[in-house]
Amino acid sequence: MKQSQLFSKTRKEAPKDEVSKNAQLLIRAGFIHKEMAGVYAFLPLGLRVIENIKNIIREEMNGIRGQELIMTSLQRKELWEKTDRWDDEKVDVWFKSALKNGTEVGFGWSHEEQITEMMTNYISSYRDLPTYVYQFQGKLRNETRAKSGIMRCREFVMKDMYSYCRSEEDHKAFYDDTTAAYLRVFEKVGLGDRTFFTFASGGAFTQFSHEFQTITDAGEDIIYIHREKKLAINQEVLTDEVMVLLGVKREELEEAKAAEVGNIFSFGGAKSEQLGLFFKDENGISQPVILGSYGIGVTRLMGVIVECFADDGGIVWPEAVAPFKVHLLSLGKDEESEKIYQQLTAAGVEVLFDDRDMGAGAKLADSDLMGMPYRVVVGKKSLEQGGAEVKGRTEETGVIMTVEALLEKVK
Amino acid sequence: MKQSQLFSKTRKEAPKDEVSKNAQLLIRAGFIHKEMAGVYAFLPLGLRVIENIKNIIREEMNGIRGQELIMTSLQRKELWEKTDRWDDEKVDVWFKSALKNGTEVGFGWSHEEQITEMMTNYISSYRDLPTYVYQFQGKLRNETRAKSGIMRCREFVMKDMYSYCRSEEDHKAFYDDTTAAYLRVFEKVGLGDRTFFTFASGGAFTQFSHEFQTITDAGEDIIYIHREKKLAINQEVLTDEVMVLLGVKREELEEAKAAEVGNIFSFGGAKSEQLGLFFKDENGISQPVILGSYGIGVTRLMGVIVECFADDGGIVWPEAVAPFKVHLLSLGKDEESEKIYQQLTAAGVEVLFDDRDMGAGAKLADSDLMGMPYRVVVGKKSLEQGGAEVKGRTEETGVIMTVEALLEKVK
Repeated sequence: MKQSQLFSKTRKEAPKDEVSKNAQLLIRAGFIHKEMAGVYAFLPLGLRVIENIKNIIREEMNGIRGQELIMTSLQRKELWEKTDRWDDEKVDVWFKSALKNGTEVGFGWSHEEQITEMMTNYISSYRDLPTYVYQFQGKLRNETRAKSGIMRCREFVMKDMYSYCRSEEDHKAFYDDTTAAYLRVFEKVGLGDRTFFTFASGGAFTQFSHEFQTITDAGEDIIYIHREKKLAINQEVLTDEVMVLLGVKREELEEAKAAEVGNIFSFGGAKSEQLGLFFKDENGISQPVILGSYGIGVTRLMGVIVECFADDGGIVWPEAVAPFKVHLLSLGKDEESEKIYQQLTAAGVEVLFDDRDMGAGAKLADSDLMGMPYRVVVGKKSLEQGGAEVKGRTEETGVIMTVEALLEKVK
Repeated sequence: MKQSQLFSKTRKEAPKDEVSKNAQLLIRAGFIHKEMAGVYAFLPLGLRVIENIKNIIREEMNGIRGQELIMTSLQRKELWEKTDRWDDEKVDVWFKSALKNGTEVGFGWSHEEQITEMMTNYISSYRDLPTYVYQFQGKLRNETRAKSGIMRCREFVMKDMYSYCRSEEDHKAFYDDTTAAYLRVFEKVGLGDRTFFTFASGGAFTQFSHEFQTITDAGEDIIYIHREKKLAINQEVLTDEVMVLLGVKREELEEAKAAEVGNIFSFGGAKSEQLGLFFKDENGISQPVILGSYGIGVTRLMGVIVECFADDGGIVWPEAVAPFKVHLLSLGKDEESEKIYQQLTAAGVEVLFDDRDMGAGAKLADSDLMGMPYRVVVGKKSLEQGGAEVKGRTEETGVIMTVEALLEKVK
């Protein structure tokens, strides 16, 4: 894509009320637009990152036999009353409104109740189990504070998956499959080294749950990491009992700030009983379906990636999520750079081509700010030396190479 | 995909309160789930149709230089007050709620105001024009009546595009480009023959607008078609003046019920003035940006397709939007059909493989109900005759052919 045609533009300054690093950089680089606190639109560059992250997650969810669907934002009150989660005293993030006839409706901050109740239409026998479904849904949560940029929003995209199994044994097997798939997702988006499978508190139905926590100063949680075992314990459950259970000692643990990028919950049969989701086993005996719930915050993950990798110059995108792989900068020799743009594009490389009529300094600064993995500069100097100057975003200096060598490198 | 693993199942009956043909069939075939009146979830098969439609639209919008982004559902009150569209007396489909601090917010039933006000950040000079942006957005509209299935929903997916031009001349050129792109979209989804570019009333800013109306008894509009000129006039503007303008005579026009599948509006500079979107021309003179708005109801389009093509047996999907191209039915000989499934899949054909342990009659009825373009039956009879029985969804009888011939036909 030619940058001269991209409507979003870089800015020197972020809005004054924006305090988080991720949103400051993403706004300045033209990836997002702030509508209000905790509510951001995703501009073409930002949408490309979101879609890349979604595709990585989608591939892994399909790989463990998840079936993608899409539920609705509008929620029925009576459904959430069945699990006692309608009352604002019980759940304090509801946005609510009413139909014309006065019927109260809520906007989905979660979809466990809705999907599980829907499943009563499709699950009645052990033959219908197991079933795994997931969606990428826009969630609405009426957060009191929203100061972490796209890491904690009033409106955000989440991948939520639900598993329906006939036994705790089947459930455990899928829980482990999902854990492995989640770790692959975080590995693929570039956060593998700093993301830990974390023991956390369980909520209403089980004693414990698991989170995936990524080390970052922008996080809201404190976790205790056991690097050798590649696991962590959330501060909220750091007890002697838990340490004994996990076979770790307090002095082996390292404290760190972290952001929750994923979580997995077991509900047993309790929520299914509340919502009427039962199956008949081989003996005709009716039993509640065993439910699990598995989330990844898609937009949050994008924010965490920015927080983890950004440097003084701006954003640093890991290759798998970058909106474009190559940022091609023309410093005056437009015919040559246009030719290189065509060659790269023809070879299937995603290129953002800075063809704007603008000084070299501003183009180089914008390129650092926007954070594509490879910067390719074409100018008089590079052409005299036989090609283009190619530099990885985090490398100190570039290397002059021919177009053929460049193609080989980035293809 | 193997049908035995698809969690959605066909049903004999639709919910009793469902009166529309499109929703009855889509629910029975397992494409959608009714959450409440006018609110439907899209199950795996339905989501595939939606994504196919979106991709057809996306290709055309990118082709006329549209840049995809995604705005938010949450809307600021003060923005809509600027154009006098916040008050429920003025716009009667708002869902509204409030933040914790009492600030009123709305949920996006349209995004003209939000996108246009955002553009004040990116448009300031004639050099920034023209700019075209679009999104696939979940819209929320508090409809009083919602009895047309997925053709009129309280929650639905819309593609909305906005054009920002410096002059009426540039605007007109893009308006015509979009008209042509829209006609290609309706052609591609199979509705070309019965969709008409329709003269309609204009609203607050212009005398007329244009709609794209598809002939169907399920429609809510009456239009008057001039088949030779391939245009129509909405009943609401069928006046002598309009007929003279279009050079048509009343007796040449044919009355039909139709559903609006797309619309395009010109706003001139009026809305830009209200929202503060100005640009400086070459002489440094500040002028309001000329705005156009272009919508296609994505989920509605899916409903219209069902209404237009369904027969007594069930849904009939045009090939371009079908969730799978081939519905492969195994009637007992599972090894052979499994082999054909593998061969088709390896050749890149999208196949739904009915491998369920179930009688032939039920499988054939389900296949008609679900509506894939090609039905391929593999059974003792077809194998004795040298292959599989292949039948187009609307063909009376099938033809036995070898796997090679089948591959040639559906590849």
